[in-house]
Amino acid sequence: MNTELLFTIFDLTGTFVFALSGAQASKERGLDIFGMVMIAFLTACGGGIIRDICIDVTPPVGISHWPYLALTLLASLSVILFYQKIQKLNYPVLLFDALGLSMFCVAGAQKSLHMGFNYEVAILLGTLSAIGGGIIRDTLLKEVPVVLRKEIYGSAALIGSSLVVLFHYSNMSSQFGAWFAISVCFTIRYISMKRKWNLPKI
Amino acid sequence: MNTELLFTIFDLTGTFVFALSGAQASKERGLDIFGMVMIAFLTACGGGIIRDICIDVTPPVGISHWPYLALTLLASLSVILFYQKIQKLNYPVLLFDALGLSMFCVAGAQKSLHMGFNYEVAILLGTLSAIGGGIIRDTLLKEVPVVLRKEIYGSAALIGSSLVVLFHYSNMSSQFGAWFAISVCFTIRYISMKRKWNLPKI
Amino acid sequence: MNTELLFTIFDLTGTFVFALSGAQASKERGLDIFGMVMIAFLTACGGGIIRDICIDVTPPVGISHWPYLALTLLASLSVILFYQKIQKLNYPVLLFDALGLSMFCVAGAQKSLHMGFNYEVAILLGTLSAIGGGIIRDTLLKEVPVVLRKEIYGSAALIGSSLVVLFHYSNMSSQFGAWFAISVCFTIRYISMKRKWNLPKI
Repeated sequence: MNTELLFTIFDLTGTFVFALSGAQASKERGLDIFGMVMIAFLTACGGGIIRDICIDVTPPVGISHWPYLALTLLASLSVILFYQKIQKLNYPVLLFDALGLSMFCVAGAQKSLHMGFNYEVAILLGTLSAIGGGIIRDTLLKEVPVVLRKEIYGSAALIGSSLVVLFHYSNMSSQFGAWFAISVCFTIRYISMKRKWNLPKI
Repeated sequence: MNTELLFTIFDLTGTFVFALSGAQASKERGLDIFGMVMIAFLTACGGGIIRDICIDVTPPVGISHWPYLALTLLASLSVILFYQKIQKLNYPVLLFDALGLSMFCVAGAQKSLHMGFNYEVAILLGTLSAIGGGIIRDTLLKEVPVVLRKEIYGSAALIGSSLVVLFHYSNMSSQFGAWFAISVCFTIRYISMKRKWNLPKI
Repeated sequence: MNTELLFTIFDLTGTFVFALSGAQASKERGLDIFGMVMIAFLTACGGGIIRDICIDVTPPVGISHWPYLALTLLASLSVILFYQKIQKLNYPVLLFDALGLSMFCVAGAQKSLHMGFNYEVAILLGTLSAIGGGIIRDTLLKEVPVVLRKEIYGSAALIGSSLVVLFHYSNMSSQFGAWFAISVCFTIRYISMKRKWNLPKI
């Protein structure tokens, strides 16, 4: 299987899983179906939309490419029909969420670099691609965003983005760099989840 | 009266009524005058501003064309001076709000199509034009946005935007399409208001 | 000392102080270190980022120029290490915050004018540059933004931005105009703070 295809699969899987998390979060907030789909969509695509606006990719691919919307609708439908089953799948969902996080931060950082922007833009927008959707979801649902409060989540994305940049400036294979960054980000996120690690509070 | 003029009147009426709703919502939240004007402005123009940013119309017309700001100031002043009278006008205000909603979703979808973007961009940004301002208003005032929770509001805008796209791709008169879409969106919103319809909760 | 240099110093001082206020606000909200840095960064740079997006300066300088991020990190570190000392420095911090406010609104209005946009864009984006970061900070921390509720803050920025525009259209020295606008905005903010002035509530 070639890399391009694998990346597309990761991207779409990440989108689907992020949309699932948005739809699930809507569940106990008294939203109606329209609200749920909208939260699911913004959770899945919000980070990428803000990234694209920041680097002048307009309209943002999240709103111009139908697979993102289609996956959002599919995820919403899944939550409506199989809510309890998906709740029980907590573990696989978290696993895919970690994969989505890793994928999104790396793809975001790469996109910024490919467009010729500097390391800082790549690191910040890579991280934002990965965590922006969750921040929008929590803010609209009247929560202080969970990514700002606990677990190792945003910082894993930050490390993933930074690794992409590091490989880029070392003139090493960006493909190897991407895989390495995805693995490291995923591993950090996964282990910290299993061990219930948190960053120090202030 | 020609169509262009009528559309302008609708657009400005929608802006004024949305600003009224923002100013009214500020009333019981302990905002000061600056806060009220700002909420009124963002309610009226926020959706269009985000739409314009997404399709690279910069600066967004909401901040570069004075009538929008002027109507916001007028609406804020009206709420300050005639709050109780406007409260009693609840019914006409809701009527104009439905008109604003219909107008904004159609104008947003048309603008995206005219700039050459695809059907999905037109539908999503048409809807966002109409409901974005209200979402910003509620979020800043620490509410879960009402459009995500109840009534038939966002979905009416979605149908209005979709109809514009449908007519566009059918090569039918976009002017007739616009009127038809406005009528359908307005009717759905109006009837659902009278009958107190809601979408199913999840 | 030349003006260019002085302006840079003001800009960076404003950034640092705004980041301090973001980091301090995070302190009692149960954020972790990642969350604190992120809130500090958005408080310091969020207003300028939105301004840049509105006038199509992409990527926004807040995310492409390292000093902004570096000052954010420094401010966060200061709050972690010297929280109580900084709390005691309440007065100087408020003083610098007033300076940052004055600086940001003037710089924002000037930037918009220099890019050829009209008076309204300059006034609105000047104000937004100065208060946008605080609005993002409060919204993410689940507060109705303080700038919408009390004190003379946003309106001081509005006056500062308007003065810049006034001088610009009077063909008077924009350098003198900038100094004058900074002084007036700072004075209004400073006196209103000392006298505990508020705008009328609605």
